[in-house]
Amino acid sequence: MNNFRFWSPTEFVFGKNTVAHTAQLIKKYGGAKVLIHYGGQSAVKSGLLADVENNLQNEFIEYVKLGGVQPNPVDTLVYEGIELCRKENVNFILAVGGGSVIDSAKAIASGVSYAGDFWNFFDHTVTINRALPVATVLTIPAAGSEGSDSMVITKTKGGLKRGSGSPLIRPVFSIMDPVLTFTLPANQTAYGIADMMAHVMERYFTQTKGVEVTDRLCEAVLLSVIKEGPAVIKEPENYEARANIMWAGTVAHNGMCGVGREEDWATHGLEHELSALYGVAHGAGLAVMFPAWMQYVYTSGIDRFVQFATRVWGISPTGDKKETALKGIQALKNFFSSIGLPVNFEQLGAQKADIDKLIDTLKINSGGSLGSFRKLDMADARAIYEIAAKA
Amino acid sequence: MNNFRFWSPTEFVFGKNTVAHTAQLIKKYGGAKVLIHYGGQSAVKSGLLADVENNLQNEFIEYVKLGGVQPNPVDTLVYEGIELCRKENVNFILAVGGGSVIDSAKAIASGVSYAGDFWNFFDHTVTINRALPVATVLTIPAAGSEGSDSMVITKTKGGLKRGSGSPLIRPVFSIMDPVLTFTLPANQTAYGIADMMAHVMERYFTQTKGVEVTDRLCEAVLLSVIKEGPAVIKEPENYEARANIMWAGTVAHNGMCGVGREEDWATHGLEHELSALYGVAHGAGLAVMFPAWMQYVYTSGIDRFVQFATRVWGISPTGDKKETALKGIQALKNFFSSIGLPVNFEQLGAQKADIDKLIDTLKINSGGSLGSFRKLDMADARAIYEIAAKA
Repeated sequence: MNNFRFWSPTEFVFGKNTVAHTAQLIKKYGGAKVLIHYGGQSAVKSGLLADVENNLQNEFIEYVKLGGVQPNPVDTLVYEGIELCRKENVNFILAVGGGSVIDSAKAIASGVSYAGDFWNFFDHTVTINRALPVATVLTIPAAGSEGSDSMVITKTKGGLKRGSGSPLIRPVFSIMDPVLTFTLPANQTAYGIADMMAHVMERYFTQTKGVEVTDRLCEAVLLSVIKEGPAVIKEPENYEARANIMWAGTVAHNGMCGVGREEDWATHGLEHELSALYGVAHGAGLAVMFPAWMQYVYTSGIDRFVQFATRVWGISPTGDKKETALKGIQALKNFFSSIGLPVNFEQLGAQKADIDKLIDTLKINSGGSLGSFRKLDMADARAIYEIAAKA
Repeated sequence: MNNFRFWSPTEFVFGKNTVAHTAQLIKKYGGAKVLIHYGGQSAVKSGLLADVENNLQNEFIEYVKLGGVQPNPVDTLVYEGIELCRKENVNFILAVGGGSVIDSAKAIASGVSYAGDFWNFFDHTVTINRALPVATVLTIPAAGSEGSDSMVITKTKGGLKRGSGSPLIRPVFSIMDPVLTFTLPANQTAYGIADMMAHVMERYFTQTKGVEVTDRLCEAVLLSVIKEGPAVIKEPENYEARANIMWAGTVAHNGMCGVGREEDWATHGLEHELSALYGVAHGAGLAVMFPAWMQYVYTSGIDRFVQFATRVWGISPTGDKKETALKGIQALKNFFSSIGLPVNFEQLGAQKADIDKLIDTLKINSGGSLGSFRKLDMADARAIYEIAAKA
């Protein structure tokens, strides 16, 4: 086990009707003038935005609003948000939405307190050392951004999709009402499931030894999602299943599953190019790329793949490690298919002919190498895209 | 799943040589004048106390010391600590030790900021609403107090052992170097293992439905401890095993395993009377009382006991639920025995003839009822003590 620091100070307020606590929590964490940041029309139509606004008005909390966050949130709206916060003397940002909205809010929060271009945090020339407090009302269980210290933003010019992070952008509180997720369509629900499973698997596949507790925690989240995932797809208003999926998404990505071990994140790197090029959902891209990555790297740590197959998928080991490992990968693929996720380029709407383009931007974003379970160069990345294209 | 709030803001600094960060962390969390609180001679002999003192001196942090915390920490030392902190204008408490030292430090921290008798927090007539920051350098993985919001103190007069808690007493940071646990004798190591397993099981055995994620997290911790426990007993200087046990102890009790579900805690209530009367280690008492409690209550939620048997102990269900459940309970007992723990009154050094005395104090401490998986009265409690006496 590696040395680690773990700090997850977010206050999670989970359950039915918890949105009613929004204003009270904003006050507790020092919010005086709030930016409510949100996405498109769904928060408006559902009445959630009005509920939040009423709650703030009843407690006499001033706010301004900025909507329009799209999936794969972009720098241009972040610049707009930073300007608005400065003009309006905003001291607290409330994200009402899913991971894209929260990531956009985190970028605004760190940008407001920095005199230079916030993109410097994403090309990693500058470290975040101040940020406005961010809080969330979560509507999509997927990205885990409601409890994480990271964010991903896409630069409109050139389509670069980049991540950054800091302990300072962990939300101060997150309100999580599973009822808000009842109206999520089946495809978005499934993308979320792929995303949270990917967050666990990026941590699970490690070469670090002696990490039994985190191994078991990773498996715990995966096993829960494998059980509850099909239930939420089948019965969108099953509260217990929605609640478990929502909480699984947080645990998958607040860091608990990764402490003390080297994490991989190659698949996220590979996927980012797909969503940047095609505008596909991150979760859909992950469902395609994760099994492909596995097929390419599994021989670099066969015992871990055998463990994945047996403990997560309940596969009886045959004695032939390769066979067992491959059965585990196939089980993951079957699971993704069973909840309606794409598992190859064709189903995703991606083209084999575009692999050159994908590699071109990947080279820039990754600096030419990615991953740690097996260190990958651009030839490896190409091979993995080809597996995904063929699959 | 029940609605819940979860807030675990402790910064965990885990791994080899992390004690060197003590002073830096104290400064980060505003410590100016520190009380170093510790137990007996082991922290002195091992050189740990000197290391901590040197670290603080090198950073010019002023401190006073108060040692002498015993297992089952007592009110009298807490009063002494409160007085010392007031006299010396201490604004930060550093516990160097295990759960007893940390609990004593938490009681001092909450008592300093309160004009009345700190025991009011323990007879639950007053709520903690201020506390000095507490931090820890952990030496015994067991109680989970390094990440928890609770504490247990024994009133010398009358021997009442009582718990109290507040989010305000969660440590601001905890330094956890597994190497510090290499010298823990086998019996203390085993008591710690029983303690952390009990912390999980008090949460696992619930009547709340729809809690798959927390079920799996509970099982994850238990499975890890079942694997790594025998390893630390056999090889006290096995770093990886010690590290996993240490982290398991924290995850077992920081709240993650209990969110959204009603918890039980009857067994802790039953055990507290044993350690108060006989001065036995808490973990030893738990190893005796948990299987006895299980044998008494398992029919009140047979499916959960079947799940425990199959998922945690790998028992193949026979179709007869009772049989499967009992096999699970027996497996727990066998495990405890295998690492040298007592599993009945005789092995613990307790007397069947004392059950009246145990019930007398239990009645006062519990108010006459305990538990939630099955609500127990004093007749039930007596029956469980009798099972433990016979076992």
